Amino acid sequence: MGWELHPDLVRDTVEVARLPLCRVGLMNDATYPWLVLSPMLPCLRDFHDVPAAHHGALMDEIGRASRALQAVYAPDKINVAALGNVTPQLHIHVIARSARDPAWAKPVWGVVPARPYAAAALGETVARLRQALAA
Amino acid sequence: MGWELHPDLVRDTVEVARLPLCRVGLMNDATYPWLVLSPMLPCLRDFHDVPAAHHGALMDEIGRASRALQAVYAPDKINVAALGNVTPQLHIHVIARSARDPAWAKPVWGVVPARPYAAAALGETVARLRQALAA
Repeated sequence: MGWELHPDLVRDTVEVARLPLCRVGLMNDATYPWLVLSPMLPCLRDFHDVPAAHHGALMDEIGRASRALQAVYAPDKINVAALGNVTPQLHIHVIARSARDPAWAKPVWGVVPARPYAAAALGETVARLRQALAA
Repeated sequence: MGWELHPDLVRDTVEVARLPLCRVGLMNDATYPWLVLSPMLPCLRDFHDVPAAHHGALMDEIGRASRALQAVYAPDKINVAALGNVTPQLHIHVIARSARDPAWAKPVWGVVPARPYAAAALGETVARLRQALAA
């Protein structure tokens, strides 16, 4: 059985890159620079479901996503979270937080409605993050 | 320079165990079974600040904490998060979520005020989780 991205993430994210383990998506919410890492292995739900053989890649890719956000946005903090109470396929949020963002210092979920990127900004953001992930 | 637990976590958590990398605390909030892992290395702020040499231990200990919560509480979901917008020392939340808890399906932060354990329940909870972590 292969891996397929959950329909919630197909709807809410735009693909930025595929790293060795994770598909990296950009959350289509211009309020926060927000990447979502989806390990491309079937049947994962919780963070600790990732097999030990993939732990190194997972940590490495969370680090790459975090450093890409830092390089592009110079945020005050990076938030990393695997919640999945709503979407039951493991995905890891990596979010660049600013002390001036509308949810600060709370977690981002549920504070303000998602604000989709304009088309040009979406393309530009994906391109910048793709380049930063490859650096 | 050694590692010392941040005063916020001294105040909010009770020590359950020290694993090879992380001090494991129980959040003193009886609303949710909630462990907090603090890597005992100085000067860590973000999740990706953990040096690669410790990635294996970190993943292993997040897994141990998650499985201990599963063994004791049989939750519907485990939430894992490194936020740290308020407390600037790296700590990883590992929270057992139930579809009947007051924050479900949202993240737990800020939904209801922390409800400290009664003294006897606190001691019993720490003992059960300590045993589960050692299993």
